[in-house]
Amino acid sequence: MTRQILLTLPVHKKGFHLITNKVQTAISGVIETGVLHIFIQHTSAGLAINENADPTVRHDLDMSFDRLAPENAPFYQHTTEGADDMPAHIKSVLTGNSVTVPLSSGKMALGTWQGIYLCEFRDHATPRQLVLTIIS
Amino acid sequence: MTRQILLTLPVHKKGFHLITNKVQTAISGVIETGVLHIFIQHTSAGLAINENADPTVRHDLDMSFDRLAPENAPFYQHTTEGADDMPAHIKSVLTGNSVTVPLSSGKMALGTWQGIYLCEFRDHATPRQLVLTIIS
Amino acid sequence: MTRQILLTLPVHKKGFHLITNKVQTAISGVIETGVLHIFIQHTSAGLAINENADPTVRHDLDMSFDRLAPENAPFYQHTTEGADDMPAHIKSVLTGNSVTVPLSSGKMALGTWQGIYLCEFRDHATPRQLVLTIIS
Repeated sequence: MTRQILLTLPVHKKGFHLITNKVQTAISGVIETGVLHIFIQHTSAGLAINENADPTVRHDLDMSFDRLAPENAPFYQHTTEGADDMPAHIKSVLTGNSVTVPLSSGKMALGTWQGIYLCEFRDHATPRQLVLTIIS
Repeated sequence: MTRQILLTLPVHKKGFHLITNKVQTAISGVIETGVLHIFIQHTSAGLAINENADPTVRHDLDMSFDRLAPENAPFYQHTTEGADDMPAHIKSVLTGNSVTVPLSSGKMALGTWQGIYLCEFRDHATPRQLVLTIIS
Repeated sequence: MTRQILLTLPVHKKGFHLITNKVQTAISGVIETGVLHIFIQHTSAGLAINENADPTVRHDLDMSFDRLAPENAPFYQHTTEGADDMPAHIKSVLTGNSVTVPLSSGKMALGTWQGIYLCEFRDHATPRQLVLTIIS
């Protein structure tokens, strides 16, 4: 049986943020084995899976993505929505806008050190809408 | 019920191109809730989801990916198929070669500003073959 | 019917490695049409799909990812686990930690030149655990 759940994340500041617990809560009661597809309906934020313990990893990711997609590149034409906007689109393509996690009897089969990240790339973001789909 | 549909895209020039309508047409008649998996069977093109309105975003993405994976890097060994070939492989790994979109009663649950991109990384491309799988 | 299979990969040296045959062997006996989701339960390695023939592509990818996520960036705070550790986390976010492949009557519908890569980003890695989920 396929189930779909909407999950609205409150405003987060620019950076990488752990949302594993929010996702786990949203799918409480699920008992299936299959996959959980998590999709963000935005073009200037992304989703990723990485280190869940040391916050310096999330700091360094934020700085590294700023380096990969800098503000004010001389060739940018899409500049009307602020210096952080075009970099946010590039970063979103680099992370991707969905992650898929195996579900084993309703539990996300993440590795010991894995957490789910909201990657917020805007300086002044809005709430972000996720679509969770459980496929079993 | 799982359905699989082949979709051949005609030749596109190098760059990021909206294919949302082509995908929507290919799955017309689908009424299920679940996910749509879109897979490109090539190693020098990719798929991504990003801004569907302002074409300058797609221009800036093309230029940014040229910066991330430049031609003629001094360490490239894979050079026999042209200066654009190895960069195309790198870009394809960065975007990924599939996207998965939630389906709600047969309709792709994209955000207001989201479109599906063919990311064509070759200067002289060939038609590209997609495999669409509907899982519900 | 959904099936889940664990696959442990032995230690690989840093770089991009073809694991298509290992995955194919692990799902032998599968006859379904649907998708195969391959997930790596680690934060300093990734999965990708790219060129399966010329090993120079894999060499050039390794070098290119070193350039995208260099060791010893002056802003890194996460430095206690070695100079290769933070770059490995960044690279893992760039490749992603799962790939999804269409299955047609149990056979992976890869393009002619596509192979599945283990992307090992640590200098001294450990065995890597994969979770394969067959959704049909």
